[in-house]
Amino acid sequence: MQKAGSPYLLFLGDTQDTLSIKGCTGVKIWRPEKAHAQIVLEGGNQDLGLPNKTPSEAAAAGCKTMLVGVANAGGFVPDNWVPTIIEALEAGMDVMAGMHTRMADIPAIAEAAAANGRTLFDVRQPSQEFKVGKGFERSGKRVLTVGTDCSLGKMFTSLALEREMLAQGMKATFRATGQSGIFIVGEGVAIDGVVADFIAGAVEWLCPENDADHWDVVEGQGSLFHPSFAGVSLGLLHGAQADALVMCHEPGRPHMRGVPGRDLPSLEDCIALNEQMAHLTNPTAKVVGVSVNTSSMPEDEAMAYLDDTAQRLGMPCCDSVRTGVSAIVNELAKI
Amino acid sequence: MQKAGSPYLLFLGDTQDTLSIKGCTGVKIWRPEKAHAQIVLEGGNQDLGLPNKTPSEAAAAGCKTMLVGVANAGGFVPDNWVPTIIEALEAGMDVMAGMHTRMADIPAIAEAAAANGRTLFDVRQPSQEFKVGKGFERSGKRVLTVGTDCSLGKMFTSLALEREMLAQGMKATFRATGQSGIFIVGEGVAIDGVVADFIAGAVEWLCPENDADHWDVVEGQGSLFHPSFAGVSLGLLHGAQADALVMCHEPGRPHMRGVPGRDLPSLEDCIALNEQMAHLTNPTAKVVGVSVNTSSMPEDEAMAYLDDTAQRLGMPCCDSVRTGVSAIVNELAKI
Repeated sequence: MQKAGSPYLLFLGDTQDTLSIKGCTGVKIWRPEKAHAQIVLEGGNQDLGLPNKTPSEAAAAGCKTMLVGVANAGGFVPDNWVPTIIEALEAGMDVMAGMHTRMADIPAIAEAAAANGRTLFDVRQPSQEFKVGKGFERSGKRVLTVGTDCSLGKMFTSLALEREMLAQGMKATFRATGQSGIFIVGEGVAIDGVVADFIAGAVEWLCPENDADHWDVVEGQGSLFHPSFAGVSLGLLHGAQADALVMCHEPGRPHMRGVPGRDLPSLEDCIALNEQMAHLTNPTAKVVGVSVNTSSMPEDEAMAYLDDTAQRLGMPCCDSVRTGVSAIVNELAKI
Repeated sequence: MQKAGSPYLLFLGDTQDTLSIKGCTGVKIWRPEKAHAQIVLEGGNQDLGLPNKTPSEAAAAGCKTMLVGVANAGGFVPDNWVPTIIEALEAGMDVMAGMHTRMADIPAIAEAAAANGRTLFDVRQPSQEFKVGKGFERSGKRVLTVGTDCSLGKMFTSLALEREMLAQGMKATFRATGQSGIFIVGEGVAIDGVVADFIAGAVEWLCPENDADHWDVVEGQGSLFHPSFAGVSLGLLHGAQADALVMCHEPGRPHMRGVPGRDLPSLEDCIALNEQMAHLTNPTAKVVGVSVNTSSMPEDEAMAYLDDTAQRLGMPCCDSVRTGVSAIVNELAKI
């Protein structure tokens, strides 16, 4: 995938809730230097605190890409978004989106892109042709975030690890495997959109051979214990050929996301299974730390949970927000 | 997927070797009543021993579908095949193929299909929209073939199991997950062509709830130990929610298919891992027998191998061709 140019104009659409704009929010948090301006349509009430600019104003100020980092039910592109998307293309910007509907499949948008020589990044549908994975040993080091469930902080943890590793002077590159991650860095592979045969191969492509002291921080997806997505998680685990794994968890979930009645696995079981399965392509892979999303807990309860878990599992246990992830990075530095 | 009508006209193209026509051969072996006639192009030398008929002759004799069950390097549709494919459509037959190139993407073929109201079955590219898998318990019984590697007899074993189960008066339906299997029964899902997110969901769709005493015999793909395809195998295992697994194996392979240097797992390890992973969606799943492809061994050596393995593992060990699979079906009948 070609890399989307920055800075971005963040398109917030006519959305009414913060969850809908999490793609744009991720950029604001993790790559603030890319978040140049925002545009809100009539009826929308979201605000990232950025200057409001029209596509022409943003393009004139140097924006290279308009990011439609907005999710709605169904993942379609509503008619009232189309004029602004076309305006952005005509102003000379590329457009990046992660809807189920490909922008390239909306004729007026496809025509405007072609007429203006602009690129449409439909990040949810990888257009790349991949080879199958091989599992051959490759140079460089890789850490993969894995989880007890979906949507509990693997991307956030991966970005926090990259930031901390760079801060400590290590060589590190975040490798995005989901649409929000791709929005943030402008490139990557939406791994759950790849044809099944090529899951591991796409990940091998995403984090290829590198310098011996370079770390790829690979964003994980799903969980080996999730009955919907475990196949994706396993292909990702094999393709990443990770030296180190970081287990992500959110305590207190009533059931696996989207599957009422199904309990989350214990951290112990999830660590053991991920290590076991990872050994197929990296016999020395091991879980080096746990990243817990304690956002629903009061401070004292959260800190007690982290301490207890660290003690029980014999490895650092952090919250990317409350404590930072330096204790986990210290473990990576030993590898 | 709509079911392709039969009988078939088997298109053998201008191929020169038996491996290239294995899709057609599979139909001849497993559904001889569907193999009405064959057509060979100039330069081809393959022969399934069927009457040679033109598309018009075959259609006049009642053929409903021309099966392009031919594989070439690259999986493309050569120009010299196109006139015959169009002739079949004009004669009133549907056309089923499993190439990488979709017939629907070849304008002359797409136009002929539309003009004559015929259906193109591009079985390698599932056109279906699937939901994600859920792993909810469902009625009916399912047996899945799994393997130590790819391409060692999972389809053949599955078809042999279905045939033997029907012969014993059990209710059984073969569920195809690869192109050859789809050719044979005229329907199914090429599971490795599904978008990664939907692997398990596609299998849940393929073998849905059924009568309590009905067995779906689900064709397996790949191996949990194959670094290219384990993700597909795992999604298939979870989606099948199998009550019983049959382990398929071919002794004497120098390495995992396509991955020089990588040894095959032991049968013991492969049985243990498949049972462990299957328990996520069916806690009582177990391997009930082993199906060995002994085609490269002389008779006495083969029989000794089967006996030794059965003894060692404590379960029936068959070769679908040499011994038949009734010993395994006897185990299924107890579930």
